[in-house]
Parts: sequence; structure tokens; C-alpha cells
Amino acid sequence: MKQNIYDNPEFFRHYQALRQTPYNYNNLLEQPAIKSLLPNLQNLQMLDIGCGMGEFAYYCIENQAKHVTAIDVSRNMLAIARREYAHPKIDYGLYGIEDYHVAPESFDCITSSLTLHYIENFDAVIRKIARILRSNGVFIFSVEHPIATARKTMVDNWIYDANGNRNHYAIDNYQDEGLREQTWFVDGVVKYHRCISTIINSLIAHGFTIEKLLEPLPDLEAVEKLPSLEKELRRPSFLVIRAKK
Amino acid sequence: MKQNIYDNPEFFRHYQALRQTPYNYNNLLEQPAIKSLLPNLQNLQMLDIGCGMGEFAYYCIENQAKHVTAIDVSRNMLAIARREYAHPKIDYGLYGIEDYHVAPESFDCITSSLTLHYIENFDAVIRKIARILRSNGVFIFSVEHPIATARKTMVDNWIYDANGNRNHYAIDNYQDEGLREQTWFVDGVVKYHRCISTIINSLIAHGFTIEKLLEPLPDLEAVEKLPSLEKELRRPSFLVIRAKK
Repeated sequence: MKQNIYDNPEFFRHYQALRQTPYNYNNLLEQPAIKSLLPNLQNLQMLDIGCGMGEFAYYCIENQAKHVTAIDVSRNMLAIARREYAHPKIDYGLYGIEDYHVAPESFDCITSSLTLHYIENFDAVIRKIARILRSNGVFIFSVEHPIATARKTMVDNWIYDANGNRNHYAIDNYQDEGLREQTWFVDGVVKYHRCISTIINSLIAHGFTIEKLLEPLPDLEAVEKLPSLEKELRRPSFLVIRAKK
Repeated sequence: MKQNIYDNPEFFRHYQALRQTPYNYNNLLEQPAIKSLLPNLQNLQMLDIGCGMGEFAYYCIENQAKHVTAIDVSRNMLAIARREYAHPKIDYGLYGIEDYHVAPESFDCITSSLTLHYIENFDAVIRKIARILRSNGVFIFSVEHPIATARKTMVDNWIYDANGNRNHYAIDNYQDEGLREQTWFVDGVVKYHRCISTIINSLIAHGFTIEKLLEPLPDLEAVEKLPSLEKELRRPSFLVIRAKK
């Protein structure tokens, strides 16, 4: 059963507030990394998996993409997307990638931001993505970094000293893949931890060539805007991959 | 200046004792992973970088390799290799890879076990390896896992509870690449921490295709032989990569 925490009203209220702050991890760290890996979008047929509120789909159209199919499992997200990022070249759809059916080789470029760690069967999804992407097409995606999802109790992975300073970042159970329940605004947010080798080998097994791996580090300007980004030096939050079919 | 800790007499005495125990991390965890990635060696011209005491070079000849050039910076190691693993099809040489000169495309297969984390300029070494490897040749190597080298004080990365049990594994300063000084038998063992993205992107930049990534996990039999291997579930010690030119 697919999780849809974004339609939990309490979660969504907090999440929206977070995304509406001018400076957050998405716009200062993850989105610049994803965008740095995009090819020239001119005339490309795109699929965005886990499109959320649609800003990225809209960005792609502004950057000359021919069309974006943007899917998400959250009605809340799609309601905002259809209102705020509507465009005749964007089709929003209420689908998880597992349930989305389309002809093989339908897209030139497939993207997915911070979505695939919610998915239980990663390998099946990568197989599907490989099938619906055209030859020489690119797949660019980000997930929470395996270092960040390793620990079983994901409440707070920092170990503090007696004065309450962050002393160490703890990574336990790294090789023990599977479900992690996290408290993020609300209890019971479900994510799936996978080793970095599992992610890479799944891509390769389905015919992808790894082109670039990013563990984004904020620049000084970003850290000035959001001082908590200083933590990124100590452990990476995100893993961003560009792979070619 | 290249480190040569293996010619420090005190270090070497401890290291030899470790390797002579029947069960250690090398023979239960790292070597099985490296060997699982080897191609059919029949008739291959091989280079082994950081050959140590020569067991692996000998293994390759036993498995039908045509010839192995086996290099190491340690006179201590090579003295043992030449005595215990001598073979007419193996040439041992006292070289670091940085100072080893050979014609382009000289080898069909290049291997390196737990050596490249001692090397300061990883990218230059990868460039050289790409140059001296034949087209379609494979490069198989292991390094200490970036998760294991991240922390600046590498004395002991475990955080213990009040009863002395290992409570957490700490990873700090992950993105802060560079020198790490470690106490391993003796003070001042120098290693270089690199992010996993740096390792992968360097290979790709020099024309390699990543074929497989392993973060080896011991099987139950290995854990029975060496109970401390149980720690591998909590954080990986080694990263093992097969890349094709």
C-alpha cells in the first residue's frame, strides 16, 4: 500500500509552511543539484515523478521543454499545482509511478525529486522507468541519502554532548535495508532505506549508465541564508543521480 | 610524499600478525568481494596495485591469468611476496602507481585492494589507470568505505553507552575531504577520505563505466568465524567497484 502522508492534513499544513519559507533545503540544496544535471530541455517530452506542487514542472516548461507529464499521489499537492502552476504544456495526474501506465519509450527525460525513498519496490520502479524512457534518454533523480536514512530510529540522528551541541552524526543499521518510520511533523512517516550500492546496481541492471553522482554541499551564500545547512558538511542529506539509458 | 607505513617495523609486525590469523576482514570480507567481480582471467595481462604479500597475484595466476605485474611501495611486503608467492608469471616491483611508467593500454585487467585510500591524488591515479588499461579492460578495486573514513578522529568511530556497548556509529565531516590520521597499531597512519560521489565521478570523468558497486556484508559463516564482523551490518567497512574502460 502506497503511503500518502502528504494528504494527512496536519502533515500537509506543516509541509506547506516549510516549503513557503524563502529558504529551505529544497530550494537551497536539492533543486540546484537536480537542475545542474538537466540536459538542454528544448523539445523534450518529460515525466516528473512526485511532482508535488508543480514548481519544477513549470520550470521545465519555462526552459523550453515540449511537454511535462507531472504525477503525484497527493490530491493536496495536485490541487495546488493545478491552481498555481497550471500550463497548457503540463498535464498533472494523480498517480503513483507504480500505477501509471504509458507506452514504452514515451519520454526523453524523466525526473524525480525526493520521492523514490517513499517507494517500497525500488527495483520494479527503476525497471518501469527504463522501459518508458527513450534510448539515450536521461533519468535524473534525488533521494534522501542512505547515510541519512540508515538509522532505524530516525527521530534525530545526532548525538549531542553534555552542553547540547551536536557532537556526532550516527549511522547505524546501514546494511539493514527496508522500512524506516520517522517522525517528521507527524508520527509514522514511512521511508525506505537502501544502500547506495543497491541504488546504483539497480540502475545498472536495468540498462542505465551512471553519468554523475552528487552529494550536494551548500555554498557559503546558502549557509548564510539558512545556517542549519552547515550540518551538510558533517553528513549529506541528499543523493542526486543522473543516469542515461 | 607517499606514505609507506608498511615499512615501519612496529606497524609491520602487527600487520603481519593480523594477516596471519586465519580469520580477518581481508579474507572473510574484502577478498571474496574483489574475487566475485573478476572476469574470466584466462590469458589476461594484469596489474595489481598495492600487491602486498602477493597472495592475490598468485591467485590470479592460479586462475589462468597470463601474467601479473604486482607493485607495492613496501620493501617488507615485497620481500615476503618474492619469497612466498614467487612465480615465473609474476613480476614484483617496488613502485607506487604514481611512479610506475608503462606504455598506454598495457593491461587487460587492473586490480587494487585497499590501497587507493592511501593515495593523495586519486584523480591523477585514475587518469593513469585509464591510460594504461586497454579498451574494454576492467578495473576492480576496493577502498575503505567513505562512511568509515569520514570522521576526523579515526581512533574509534563508535559511540558507546554507559555499559560499554556500541551504541552508534558516528560519521562526521563526511563532505570535508582530505587527510585523516589514524592510529592503527601505531600513530600517524595517513589515509585520505573522499566522498563516494568524488570516487564515482572521477572514474566516469576518465572514461570508465561503472559496472558494479559492492558494500560487502559477511555471510553467517563468516560472522561465526569472526564475530566482530557483525558490526558490518551497522556500517560498511569497504567499498568495492568494478569499472570498465
